[in-house]
Amino acid sequence: MKFSQFGLKFTQDAGILSLMEDLGHALTVNQNMMMLGGGNPGKVPGVVRILQKRLADIAKDPESVYRLLGIYDPPQGNVKLIRALVKLFNDLYEWPIQEENVCLTNGSQSAFFMLFNLMAGQYPDESFKKIQFPLTPEYIGYADEGITPHIFTASKPRIEMQNPPFFKYHVDFDRLSIDDRVAAICVSRPTNPTGNMLTDDEINKLDRIARENQIPLIIDNAYGVPFPQIVYQKATPFWNDNTILCMSLSKLGLPSVRTGIVIGPAEITQALAKMNAILTLSPVGVGSQLVLDLVESGDICRISREVIQPFYRTKMQQTVQWIQDAFSGLDYAIHQPEGAMFLWLWFPNLPVSSLELYERLKQKGVLVVSGHYFFPGLSEDWDHTAQCIRMTYSQENTMVKRGIEIMAETLREL
Amino acid sequence: MKFSQFGLKFTQDAGILSLMEDLGHALTVNQNMMMLGGGNPGKVPGVVRILQKRLADIAKDPESVYRLLGIYDPPQGNVKLIRALVKLFNDLYEWPIQEENVCLTNGSQSAFFMLFNLMAGQYPDESFKKIQFPLTPEYIGYADEGITPHIFTASKPRIEMQNPPFFKYHVDFDRLSIDDRVAAICVSRPTNPTGNMLTDDEINKLDRIARENQIPLIIDNAYGVPFPQIVYQKATPFWNDNTILCMSLSKLGLPSVRTGIVIGPAEITQALAKMNAILTLSPVGVGSQLVLDLVESGDICRISREVIQPFYRTKMQQTVQWIQDAFSGLDYAIHQPEGAMFLWLWFPNLPVSSLELYERLKQKGVLVVSGHYFFPGLSEDWDHTAQCIRMTYSQENTMVKRGIEIMAETLREL
Repeated sequence: MKFSQFGLKFTQDAGILSLMEDLGHALTVNQNMMMLGGGNPGKVPGVVRILQKRLADIAKDPESVYRLLGIYDPPQGNVKLIRALVKLFNDLYEWPIQEENVCLTNGSQSAFFMLFNLMAGQYPDESFKKIQFPLTPEYIGYADEGITPHIFTASKPRIEMQNPPFFKYHVDFDRLSIDDRVAAICVSRPTNPTGNMLTDDEINKLDRIARENQIPLIIDNAYGVPFPQIVYQKATPFWNDNTILCMSLSKLGLPSVRTGIVIGPAEITQALAKMNAILTLSPVGVGSQLVLDLVESGDICRISREVIQPFYRTKMQQTVQWIQDAFSGLDYAIHQPEGAMFLWLWFPNLPVSSLELYERLKQKGVLVVSGHYFFPGLSEDWDHTAQCIRMTYSQENTMVKRGIEIMAETLREL
Repeated sequence: MKFSQFGLKFTQDAGILSLMEDLGHALTVNQNMMMLGGGNPGKVPGVVRILQKRLADIAKDPESVYRLLGIYDPPQGNVKLIRALVKLFNDLYEWPIQEENVCLTNGSQSAFFMLFNLMAGQYPDESFKKIQFPLTPEYIGYADEGITPHIFTASKPRIEMQNPPFFKYHVDFDRLSIDDRVAAICVSRPTNPTGNMLTDDEINKLDRIARENQIPLIIDNAYGVPFPQIVYQKATPFWNDNTILCMSLSKLGLPSVRTGIVIGPAEITQALAKMNAILTLSPVGVGSQLVLDLVESGDICRISREVIQPFYRTKMQQTVQWIQDAFSGLDYAIHQPEGAMFLWLWFPNLPVSSLELYERLKQKGVLVVSGHYFFPGLSEDWDHTAQCIRMTYSQENTMVKRGIEIMAETLREL
């Protein structure tokens, strides 16, 4: 059977496909795999308890069950949740957002598919525009989302070596050139895969550049403040009328409900609502109903700060320690873990590619993600792109520790 | 802000957008509207009770709560549900499907977006292929799903006048011409909007034509057998290795979980799994977990037959009677209601367009859907397309009855 251009583009072997297949099968089929790969959130007991209570409450009343499952939300998403989010953000940060500035989607990935293709690609006047990633490495999931090829462009970062084994990427503003072929600037903050928090200064500069060029700044806030708040240092939330801020319920512990939240200029969010109708009728409603009271009460922020953040911070600290113990004598560096649920490991003298390292580890039952997938849009050759891996520390401690030991053995064999 | 070609295409005012906005707002915001518009399933008490029990059971056990909400499924969908569906269909119908023949999606609408664009549109060799609808009227939701314009082609039906007030559309095989510009044949069965059941003879002929032309036959089975089985006459289920059968959990009473099921050649379903990964990471998992035991036990078919089908059949019969009472003396016809949850009303001498009738009814608090949206791909002029409306009888009886009375008044004024 033959496929269209679109079909061929979207059925190529993509990094995100390999990652999600590994993840799904490790979590549901072969539970012996050490899942240090995809970004499944951890099993946070305090969060599970809250969801359990919420489900039990809903299950008491047929009318609540019907509201949870039996109704299509409008294409913009659940009206009550949107109203509660507007109030939450305006109360917390004194933002001026209104209901028209918010659109819900079937998860962040769908939001980015719509956003990128709404703004980048072929224009009716024959021009072609791209999304600019000012800092790579950047999220693997973006890489294949264009309905046409080559809709991304990216710059190499500046690398700051810190106290060993740590390093940190910074936006290299000298390399960043924006012209009228750029449709938007996009960053994830905390960055997936590195856990990097762009500094306030970097964000302010990017905002200024975006405004000067009359293009929006997209901030992927899937791990950020105020929820799920998997951030280990001070993070000033950022939004203004030129910002498209993308959030998600996944990392709160609800990946299965596929609920993304976009806060942006009304022109953008209303375009997303229209696309929701055509692409999917209506976004998933279950997630909205499940978290509605948490958003209305503001508890979603408290739980994030008091339950979710400490859970991941402890795991992060333990994992760094296990790596330092197991990797002693090896040539490696760790990106300063400032947020998200990943460590980004750099092996400057790796004798094989990161993809080959991934394959060897997979054979030994350890899933990680090869770093080479995390440079979407970067056209320069750069050895660094084949010297890194992303590992998550969100899963069971014993599994993470054993995985690190096997990784150390494998690196020593090399 | 300027949008790309793709952006402009998907932010046009689409029929499905108008429908879903009306529906969502009527069900969640302005509950005084008489919602005879979009296809929200009804509140079936027996189904709500089953879902309520299932939620209560899950809520008893933190591990079950985590499995329901906390895990990304693989891109192909929940492995256990796929396994159970394969067994269900093979046991029921002696089909030869395997797990690789099944892919879950974020609802049927997403499945059709992927399927249509996978097969139709621009090909690398510069050819351009289309989806053929052999019978119009056909589903409104298809109309805007192409990433390029003009990916649909359609034929006028043959109209059989039955005992008044009934009529029925048939595929006009004399008008149906397939050549190498057609990528697939697609029908909904029962048909949305008309409630028409294509006869076994029609399906067999379409299957033969598809095979002769080496293109697949897509059957949209959202309302069909074995679930939700909203079918009021004998319906022989149809699948072979050239069929792409699309199903959904929505009309069972779960529209909010956005879960579609595609059963087709592995080449197609595996392509959909890859597209799922890129477009949305992983399909919604909640719906799969909620219905897993119903599919494993086969109860999903029993509930459909014993609870869901009688609920809609009774409503349909009542609604037809109310129309016959209220419309007495008016010039109208009803498509023979053989399934789904709609009546398709034809007003051969309507002095205004169906869109104008929709507007007038909306002003009086009655939502219906203008029939002109239901002829995607039909290029011939045909007065009939502006003479029909679709109304659903899935909602509260008093609302449906009052809506019909207001419709009768409005038609008399005209």
